[in-house]
Amino acid sequence: MSRHFDEAEGLCEEKDPATDGFVFNQTMLRIADPKRSLDFYTRVMGMTLLKRLDFPEMKFSLYFLTAGEDFTDVSEDDKERTRQTFGRPAMLELTHNWDDTAESADYHNGNSDPKGFGHIGFHVPDLGHACDRFESLGVPFQKRPDDGAMKGIAFIKDPDGYWIEIFEASQVASVCAPHITS
Amino acid sequence: MSRHFDEAEGLCEEKDPATDGFVFNQTMLRIADPKRSLDFYTRVMGMTLLKRLDFPEMKFSLYFLTAGEDFTDVSEDDKERTRQTFGRPAMLELTHNWDDTAESADYHNGNSDPKGFGHIGFHVPDLGHACDRFESLGVPFQKRPDDGAMKGIAFIKDPDGYWIEIFEASQVASVCAPHITS
Repeated sequence: MSRHFDEAEGLCEEKDPATDGFVFNQTMLRIADPKRSLDFYTRVMGMTLLKRLDFPEMKFSLYFLTAGEDFTDVSEDDKERTRQTFGRPAMLELTHNWDDTAESADYHNGNSDPKGFGHIGFHVPDLGHACDRFESLGVPFQKRPDDGAMKGIAFIKDPDGYWIEIFEASQVASVCAPHITS
Repeated sequence: MSRHFDEAEGLCEEKDPATDGFVFNQTMLRIADPKRSLDFYTRVMGMTLLKRLDFPEMKFSLYFLTAGEDFTDVSEDDKERTRQTFGRPAMLELTHNWDDTAESADYHNGNSDPKGFGHIGFHVPDLGHACDRFESLGVPFQKRPDDGAMKGIAFIKDPDGYWIEIFEASQVASVCAPHITS
């Protein structure tokens, strides 16, 4: 099957059937303090903890969060829910090494040298409303929607300092319209 | 609505309605060479480029890829497809700063000091088959499925050295069964 949506060098547009069923399941970030991060991602970002896995012999825990809305298919059986957790798209995996605390660990967000990972990003239905709420909850901003050249896009920071881009898809499409090349 | 799937300190299980409709849309990684990375993510990983955005005045380009299978709803109109791209879950955003080349740029994968981001991860329908194919395509492995303590989980490396965890959800559930705490 050929799928052509946009132009770029290097693209393979004839999908190898061997990749059928591949699911982009997870993005993993190390965190210093699970209580602090779980509060942020569930209370502030509205995510849901689908599965926690503890590995005492290796002294770490994994927390898998989703922003999904439909939980009618989520199993109450822990093993089955673990299978579901690893088979779904768009999971945020937070890794806590038990020796780390908010005082002892200072994770690197990738946006100063050495750079690499940049951010995760959320679409929100109403950017102004979302940002007013983040302000009222005391969430630190890296960039407010009207700052800088890229209007209509905000960056907030999670408790470890990782950047989270916040945008409203229809606004981004308008902001980016001059940059659509094809 | 209360949603309780697993236990942890810090959890807010009464979702704030202000977060309804939040979509975990994207994970952004900087890349040195778009031709090299697009070849890898489309040919090897089977992803599809939904949207490319070029910002000549700031000298960077963004490439948004999905592992989604159903493209029946994808618009041929560029602005509408941009809106769709920023509203969908599980997009991989690759950022190329035009001054970077494979020779000049060496991005940090987050798994050596200073640590932070760890990896992205894909569910595959058949782990053995997928890993045999990665081997035959010359993809470098950080960990093969039988290496180390965590059997049934592999890590490959993308062209910039970012780690990609490869697993089969049902196998992970079996491997992790002793670590399910509740």
